[in-house]
Amino acid sequence: MRAVALGGGHGLHATLSALRRLTPDVTAVVTVADDGGSSGRLRRELGLLPPGDLRQALAALAAAEDGGTLWAEVFQHRFGGTGALTGHAVGNLLLAGLFEVLGDPVAGLDEAAKLLGITGRVLPMSAEPLEIEADVTGLENGQVSRIRGQVAVASTPGQVRRIRLHNPGRPNRPPVACADAVEAVLGADVVFFGPGSWFTSVLPHLLVPDLHDALVTTSATKVVVLNLVPQPGETAGFSPERHLHVLFEHAPRLKVDAVIADRDSVPTPARLRRAAEALGGRAHLASVAAPGGAGRHDPDALADCVREALGLCLSESVEEGQ
Amino acid sequence: MRAVALGGGHGLHATLSALRRLTPDVTAVVTVADDGGSSGRLRRELGLLPPGDLRQALAALAAAEDGGTLWAEVFQHRFGGTGALTGHAVGNLLLAGLFEVLGDPVAGLDEAAKLLGITGRVLPMSAEPLEIEADVTGLENGQVSRIRGQVAVASTPGQVRRIRLHNPGRPNRPPVACADAVEAVLGADVVFFGPGSWFTSVLPHLLVPDLHDALVTTSATKVVVLNLVPQPGETAGFSPERHLHVLFEHAPRLKVDAVIADRDSVPTPARLRRAAEALGGRAHLASVAAPGGAGRHDPDALADCVREALGLCLSESVEEGQ
Repeated sequence: MRAVALGGGHGLHATLSALRRLTPDVTAVVTVADDGGSSGRLRRELGLLPPGDLRQALAALAAAEDGGTLWAEVFQHRFGGTGALTGHAVGNLLLAGLFEVLGDPVAGLDEAAKLLGITGRVLPMSAEPLEIEADVTGLENGQVSRIRGQVAVASTPGQVRRIRLHNPGRPNRPPVACADAVEAVLGADVVFFGPGSWFTSVLPHLLVPDLHDALVTTSATKVVVLNLVPQPGETAGFSPERHLHVLFEHAPRLKVDAVIADRDSVPTPARLRRAAEALGGRAHLASVAAPGGAGRHDPDALADCVREALGLCLSESVEEGQ
Repeated sequence: MRAVALGGGHGLHATLSALRRLTPDVTAVVTVADDGGSSGRLRRELGLLPPGDLRQALAALAAAEDGGTLWAEVFQHRFGGTGALTGHAVGNLLLAGLFEVLGDPVAGLDEAAKLLGITGRVLPMSAEPLEIEADVTGLENGQVSRIRGQVAVASTPGQVRRIRLHNPGRPNRPPVACADAVEAVLGADVVFFGPGSWFTSVLPHLLVPDLHDALVTTSATKVVVLNLVPQPGETAGFSPERHLHVLFEHAPRLKVDAVIADRDSVPTPARLRRAAEALGGRAHLASVAAPGGAGRHDPDALADCVREALGLCLSESVEEGQ
């Protein structure tokens, strides 16, 4: 099974940790709009793709948190202290070095994947660093405010209504998709959206025109994995249905085959089922939260639920074909 | 042939580049007193061994300047810009990460060597960062001044008379040798001193007690490679003979089998021959400078001269044995 997972940060980490239990052929397609932390500092200082989300995806496929290889551990190691290097992950610095030496982030990521012994691939959604802009209400009385930058959007006390993506390096042109990412989506058997920061990690892929078109036209089964809890800031107070609705608003032509949600995170299952059907798919409710209430998915439980949802999708398409 | 090369910086790079033409079994034993540049910043910020000279030795054995592997190139790549990372070599950051994760610089260097596909080893002379202190004349009228720190000593406008080594972390105890380095010296067939910054890269090994004792007692053939030109600052105006004399002053029990010097860098060959004989060895004059007058050794020419010098030493010891 060729699986593609779209996202960034912790959410993508959860999907990838589940997917590597199901297939060795996993491609992560990662947002490149981060402007905070170690990634933001590297981006501003060296003009490179922000490496942090790419590094997290590599670490997830390398099973860094389950021991992984020494290099996975080194990749994830952050410098301490109070100096210029504080907070930089070694993997971010290594990716930055590979990007500069090879002059091509895709080649750099493939080399890093080899070093970590990964069977899948990690790709950026675009080879150029992008910027998120959001329309936000609730900040000025009755007005729509424009907010720029991933950190600002993710943490706004207002309500995010809509996002756009810009390429600050070429402000008058739409963002250009990474060709290998488009190809991966078109050749996939199954594509995953979410979980993760909805506006800043899950939706951006749909705003890169070539990637959007590939996601709309691919014959892959499309699966949305909803968050366990609304994210403070960008999706505070959002119901599960509203997450799907926002997806539809940003990509009206996108059809979805399955929506996976945690049983305990869905107050009104009937509403979620209707929202999933409106996108062309079916809701799958299961217990997928990690024990302890940390707000994280359990990789094994998520893998089981994905397997079951894909089995159902498969049997339905067989029925349709008859 | 098991070869051990002692030194640091560009000088050690020259020896290693020559030695890897002669044998796959090369161990570099590297000074750890650097306090300048990228190394000095990492040392101060993270309290680690200064990685720069170690990185240079790894790069020399990986033949980074002759193409080498991608990782050798990445190791040597320095970040540009004007920010917090400016001037840091990626390999320095990677070594720092390995040292922190593994908690042991020797293990970290062995992993880096694997990554670079090196057959030999690179070892620190001590697992703790050390500090050089020098007695310097000519700064205050008729007085001996004490100068601390490798950068300060290497660039003093005064005359360096003598150096000492301190462990700033344990100021009342002598520096502790890296056990693997001591073992490598005791098991070597040939040990090389120099070329390089005489007081700050070549002599320090003789001031680590256990390493000194190993160098004095080892049955290895001992070869000194002299510099092509006196180094501005620490050895300004030094004759080739004076370099040997300084070696004797810091380690009176050390015997040397061969002294290699560039023919054009020795104003009075007869004096050098006498100085070499006083240390128990023989002077070998040859054309070992790289063309173009860059003040660097030509690795092929140096390798040829080493081969010839070792051949002579060998035949002499056979004669002695008869």
